[in-house]
Amino acid sequence: MSASSPLLNELIEALRCLPGVGGKSAQRMAFHLLERDRQRGLRLARALEQAMQRIGNCTRCRNFSEEPVCALCASASRDRHVLCVVESPTDLAAIEQATGYRGQYFVLLGRLSPLDGMGPQELGLDLLAQRLGEGEIEEMIIATNPTVEGEATAHYLAQLARAGGIRPTRLAHGVPLGGELEYVDRGTLAHAFGSRQALD
Amino acid sequence: MSASSPLLNELIEALRCLPGVGGKSAQRMAFHLLERDRQRGLRLARALEQAMQRIGNCTRCRNFSEEPVCALCASASRDRHVLCVVESPTDLAAIEQATGYRGQYFVLLGRLSPLDGMGPQELGLDLLAQRLGEGEIEEMIIATNPTVEGEATAHYLAQLARAGGIRPTRLAHGVPLGGELEYVDRGTLAHAFGSRQALD
Ligand SMILES: [Zn+2]
Ligand SMILES: [Zn+2]
Repeated sequence: MSASSPLLNELIEALRCLPGVGGKSAQRMAFHLLERDRQRGLRLARALEQAMQRIGNCTRCRNFSEEPVCALCASASRDRHVLCVVESPTDLAAIEQATGYRGQYFVLLGRLSPLDGMGPQELGLDLLAQRLGEGEIEEMIIATNPTVEGEATAHYLAQLARAGGIRPTRLAHGVPLGGELEYVDRGTLAHAFGSRQALD
Repeated sequence: MSASSPLLNELIEALRCLPGVGGKSAQRMAFHLLERDRQRGLRLARALEQAMQRIGNCTRCRNFSEEPVCALCASASRDRHVLCVVESPTDLAAIEQATGYRGQYFVLLGRLSPLDGMGPQELGLDLLAQRLGEGEIEEMIIATNPTVEGEATAHYLAQLARAGGIRPTRLAHGVPLGGELEYVDRGTLAHAFGSRQALD
């Protein structure tokens, strides 16, 4: 910390809310912006404020969106017969970037975990059931993480799909067990996505 | 990038102004803040805005400060007979954190580099000369970086000190040649600071 400026100390402390940023990195970031890049620092301040205050969730797929219906849901060019269900917006972004998938999404914003108070309602499964009831979806790609809770969630989702006459599929093995989609390399993720298997 | 939210894309892009943050890290930071830490994200936005807009330079030592005279210069408990001259606020912070130094500072905000238009005036050497003329300073610790330009600057500063009847000293060898103070480990820096040598 520089004892010379309370505002600088506050900035260094605030930067530590970023994942992977410790005290030393935070200090380096603050000095870098102050010494060399104040305009971009201000731009970041405004982008942060706007994003934190205005980004909510799409009323249709629950992904991040500042509009009631997100651009992905509103797009006329996406396949309306396939729905990919993910745990988080991060996982959606990973699939979107790694694969050629051009269908719809649904974001659970969590996984089934009764002990943490995460049940069907918290995951928006009523909204999902309503979506399935519209009759357009033919395949549900279940892309929950290959963890114990993710697998339990997948099992639950597969039943929901079958009850609606929809074919459930799951990403192929290839995603490391116990891992998180977000950290899988693009090649592995693309391969697993391409060779997804029917759930019997 | 998530195609679903322009504000999210803008935030990810803006985060890349931070040193060491690439596209993948920026995306992870944005999702982390949105999913788990919006209050701290807002706090960071405000800290950034305040720091970028309100932090200037101390009129006495040129270190970062939102006040005309910084807390270090205003402090009654610092030794007024020793002045440590550094290239940047980052270097000042490194010395302040690594050593037990309790004297005054002067920040050049650069180093002599005629080809880049950095001459005595840009380094505030008129302000420094005026400071030396006040008669309180007895020793000038020259803590410029051990690079070619830093050494040339040190040579110039030593002449300035001697002309004012002030003893110039230089950090001891131990700081790796060609390196930057900012990246030296604390132990090495503390040792070099403690065994600084008189310049003959
Ligand atoms: Zn949507
Ligand atoms: Zn000052």
